Amino acid sequence: MIKEITTKELNTGSFIEEKVKEISDTVGTGIAINALSGGVDSSTVTMLGHKALGNRLRTVFIQNGLMRENEPEKVAGFFREFGIHVEIIDAKDEFLSALKGITDPEKKREAITETFYSKVFGRIVKESGARFLLQGTILTDIDETVAGIKRQHNVFAQLGIDPQEAFGYQIIEPLIQLRKDGVRMIGKALGLPSEMFDRIPFPGPALAARIIGEVTGERLETARKATMVVEKMLKNSGAFQYMAILHQDRVTGIRDKKRDFGQQIEIRCWDSVDARTASPTNLPFETLKNLAAAIISEVPGIVSVTYNIASKPPSTIEAV
Amino acid sequence: MIKEITTKELNTGSFIEEKVKEISDTVGTGIAINALSGGVDSSTVTMLGHKALGNRLRTVFIQNGLMRENEPEKVAGFFREFGIHVEIIDAKDEFLSALKGITDPEKKREAITETFYSKVFGRIVKESGARFLLQGTILTDIDETVAGIKRQHNVFAQLGIDPQEAFGYQIIEPLIQLRKDGVRMIGKALGLPSEMFDRIPFPGPALAARIIGEVTGERLETARKATMVVEKMLKNSGAFQYMAILHQDRVTGIRDKKRDFGQQIEIRCWDSVDARTASPTNLPFETLKNLAAAIISEVPGIVSVTYNIASKPPSTIEAV
Repeated sequence: MIKEITTKELNTGSFIEEKVKEISDTVGTGIAINALSGGVDSSTVTMLGHKALGNRLRTVFIQNGLMRENEPEKVAGFFREFGIHVEIIDAKDEFLSALKGITDPEKKREAITETFYSKVFGRIVKESGARFLLQGTILTDIDETVAGIKRQHNVFAQLGIDPQEAFGYQIIEPLIQLRKDGVRMIGKALGLPSEMFDRIPFPGPALAARIIGEVTGERLETARKATMVVEKMLKNSGAFQYMAILHQDRVTGIRDKKRDFGQQIEIRCWDSVDARTASPTNLPFETLKNLAAAIISEVPGIVSVTYNIASKPPSTIEAV
Repeated sequence: MIKEITTKELNTGSFIEEKVKEISDTVGTGIAINALSGGVDSSTVTMLGHKALGNRLRTVFIQNGLMRENEPEKVAGFFREFGIHVEIIDAKDEFLSALKGITDPEKKREAITETFYSKVFGRIVKESGARFLLQGTILTDIDETVAGIKRQHNVFAQLGIDPQEAFGYQIIEPLIQLRKDGVRMIGKALGLPSEMFDRIPFPGPALAARIIGEVTGERLETARKATMVVEKMLKNSGAFQYMAILHQDRVTGIRDKKRDFGQQIEIRCWDSVDARTASPTNLPFETLKNLAAAIISEVPGIVSVTYNIASKPPSTIEAV
């Protein structure tokens, strides 16, 4: 049982000091590696790790092809400001071919996890000689895994799988007692720019988790374009998280007076503090109509747009 | 080219007089038959037909099993008030077995049309000896068919199929120059009770058009229950039409702390005058959240609810 540190209890200064010491003590004179996704959790871990280890922490960003537009370059740019070098690894083809033909969401998640760990990151770790892996696991990830909800690629230890044996390295998880709001406080205290640590959460499997049905290059392009529209238009909404989900179901549409049997995008926009519970944001109806119109005009193949009105639970934040 | 009569031009008294005379002149001393669906169009035609022919018009209501709860009994009850007998024909099994295994929306529509005309209604017509078929086709049906949108089961004539040859009867379509708003004026003038002619439109293929994917007994039950909730809660919304659509896509949910990979209902609620164009109704956000909560608690298997925010065009009013 991991002891939660609530935001009330959290003293950012001493938390950072303590974690930096822990990382430093654990790694000793060795080298560590971490995979940065650009989310708040892995960004905060990257900052903590470099504070503790300097250049003895190697930070890689794996371009899996499932990301938002220009994601790797944007993230690497943020860290360049801190003198931290982020290595971008292009693994697009490996992920796409692992996902080919898979429609079951669990199998999709497994294919991504498997490709990430066993193939791409596993290879990099082995080649690097690093024995220590820094990970941004937070308490919410563990809650959900234990409850059997979604597989999180970063909780092998909690599932009883020995990461030492499984992948040949030791996992260090400095954020494990925090929830999202606590991590944001730490990120802010570490000097992460607000545009970085206030970025809305983006799931591990990224756009693949926003696509119901098979993930192909073309469908990724559709989900990516819709995501750009939603993120641009809801940037100042103050919401906890917002996303575009590409459905597999086809719906009837009409274009140029002709039948157009097209695709549907579902928009979800959440109010939440820590992602444990969430409710749909009461966006102005004009905003919703403008969002639908923008997606329909800018994303080829979309004839219908919906807005999620269910809460978590029983819904989850992501659809897949 | 059929000449439209707009509501501005429409004189209900002389329109009714003229159509009653036309029906009377066409049928002569013969007998006619019509299929009543309970929608505004077929109800208005039933009134016109009985005004012209009295008991020489036989009105049947085909229970296809794709209807709202108690639909046939409710409709027959309305007409009993006018001394008009509506014969209810139970054909549930024939429709369900025709729909078995079909997921393509066009094929579903064809199976329903085929079962309705060739099998059930065709048989009734032949057995009745009637040579004249009254139909509630309106101008909007023809527009959409000509543009190739949705097949309407009631526009064989406009598609160049000779109904005389095809089914052995002649079609009389007294409402063909009107749109929905005009039909409502006529219905009102004929004395149809407001709860009848103000009923929200319900499509020919009924709940089958509200189910994406295969139509089974169980999925019909799900769509029927969700429809009941939506119709009850939006009865006083003043909207043109509202509906619940059962999706085939599965989404992740959580119930009793366990993963519940469930189904999604999409709610559509439209503002429109004549169904040619339509926009989503600006319902209060509280209403939307209450709708979602009610559907999730009352309809087994549903973990997620969305609200349509796209307009027609490019969306259509129905999803399938």
